[in-house]
Amino acid sequence: MELRERLGEWRALVEQALERYLPTEEDEPTALHRAMRYSVFAGGKRVRPALLLEACAVAGGNPMQGLPAACAVELIHTYSLIHDDLPCMDDADTRRGKPTCHKAFGEAVAVLAGDALLTLAFEILAELPASGVDPTIALRVTQTIAHAVGSLGMVGGQTLDILYAAEQNDALTLEQLYTMHSLKTGRLIQAALEAGGLIADAPLAKQRALREFGRHIGLAFQVADDLLDVEGTEQSLGKTTGDAAKGKLTFPAVLGVEASRALAQQTAAKAVEQLAVFGDEADALRQLAWFVVNRKM
Amino acid sequence: MELRERLGEWRALVEQALERYLPTEEDEPTALHRAMRYSVFAGGKRVRPALLLEACAVAGGNPMQGLPAACAVELIHTYSLIHDDLPCMDDADTRRGKPTCHKAFGEAVAVLAGDALLTLAFEILAELPASGVDPTIALRVTQTIAHAVGSLGMVGGQTLDILYAAEQNDALTLEQLYTMHSLKTGRLIQAALEAGGLIADAPLAKQRALREFGRHIGLAFQVADDLLDVEGTEQSLGKTTGDAAKGKLTFPAVLGVEASRALAQQTAAKAVEQLAVFGDEADALRQLAWFVVNRKM
Repeated sequence: MELRERLGEWRALVEQALERYLPTEEDEPTALHRAMRYSVFAGGKRVRPALLLEACAVAGGNPMQGLPAACAVELIHTYSLIHDDLPCMDDADTRRGKPTCHKAFGEAVAVLAGDALLTLAFEILAELPASGVDPTIALRVTQTIAHAVGSLGMVGGQTLDILYAAEQNDALTLEQLYTMHSLKTGRLIQAALEAGGLIADAPLAKQRALREFGRHIGLAFQVADDLLDVEGTEQSLGKTTGDAAKGKLTFPAVLGVEASRALAQQTAAKAVEQLAVFGDEADALRQLAWFVVNRKM
Repeated sequence: MELRERLGEWRALVEQALERYLPTEEDEPTALHRAMRYSVFAGGKRVRPALLLEACAVAGGNPMQGLPAACAVELIHTYSLIHDDLPCMDDADTRRGKPTCHKAFGEAVAVLAGDALLTLAFEILAELPASGVDPTIALRVTQTIAHAVGSLGMVGGQTLDILYAAEQNDALTLEQLYTMHSLKTGRLIQAALEAGGLIADAPLAKQRALREFGRHIGLAFQVADDLLDVEGTEQSLGKTTGDAAKGKLTFPAVLGVEASRALAQQTAAKAVEQLAVFGDEADALRQLAWFVVNRKM
């Protein structure tokens, strides 16, 4: 099957499931639920869920058992975007071609919508056994994801991003750039792949391979994102561009565009190398890796 | 043992455990971890953890097994205070006699500290089996707490509070007041009591009794809080007082002070009634219920 078709199928599955998990727009408080749905159904590519589901499949698991965790990961990603866009953070007006959550619903409701999406993610994870996942594995998945997105992971990375943006860019090192992005973007992507391997109850060597694949692909994803930010126009990306112009620490700003392009390709190649243990079975995951670095949006 | 002494012992246990769970102030990003610790160790009474631990004990469980969940509940309570105090919400300058988190660390770090505390709570819950809790029970505790504090619970209640404050108080009904408070304050308190019963693996009748006790005591707690808000001075409460003056919906504002006092006492009495099934064993929980409504801070 073509990658695009396969991605489309995962995406449809994830969106149907998210539709079921989210309270309706009629549920009180309606403003809160409208804001949550507005941001969740804003046209995300669902890359993180696809990575989790592919990891689960390649490790010999049933992707349907991974679907709730895939939704949880997407809800966490959405919450992080809502909070990152707030006036006190990146102060972004548009996201995926639409007004950001706080522009559409006000700042208070946006903060609360983010809080509620994060909370819903953990409620869904706590219900993994209803999809046939062993309770001990469900708890390990929850622990892995929670650790990845907490103060020593994603939230820590966003804090560094904010703190660095307030400083002078040229005072910062490449190492700081790596650390910040591996936390802010890499950890959740890596956790999605680990979760897929855990739910498949894969042998340790395969779980390790998925974890390492996740580590590299998380970095490749962010370098590609920074490049799009430099090259893209607001129209094709659908978000306020120019992180670099805002004094944000980006790979092109530190390494230059050409070296960043090379880094993205090399890192994706390293990621794909980790998949040797799976043989041909991992072809869809390999294609997904290259899609992640070569995408134009 | 005297209630005050018993509360002091629970509090010491909870604070020692929180000390271990929270990253140190030296862990990167240090600003984030300082903000998290600043708010967690700001002198809270630890009423919710005490209720969880007492519920666990009265239901025949080992409170030491409940300690991680007690910490998780307190972290969730702390996150909710940090976000409620934000300029876009209640815009509070002081809390427990000290500058609020965003006043001390800036708005961005305060939002992120709240996010990280909520996430840490779920990481701790996912590790409950390390304290001897059965994995299936650990997941039920996680599910119960997550549901209680999500968009249909605590976060929903905070949303209603914000939305109602923007309207005219006299257009609102007593029923709306009950709904808002039962969500905003009641659900987490009720979940703490349910979690104690779940961890004790109590028979269903006792779990039901704890849940109903929790429902009533959550309301009594909030009515008492509103009364303190009217009667207290900023000095004795250590927080910006006068929710009523800000157009916030409070029980004294809707019912008057005398009727609110009567409601607090009656509701506490109803709560205590639920404890009959436990006999004398529940004396500490009974005392705690009366402490909650009669406290002066």
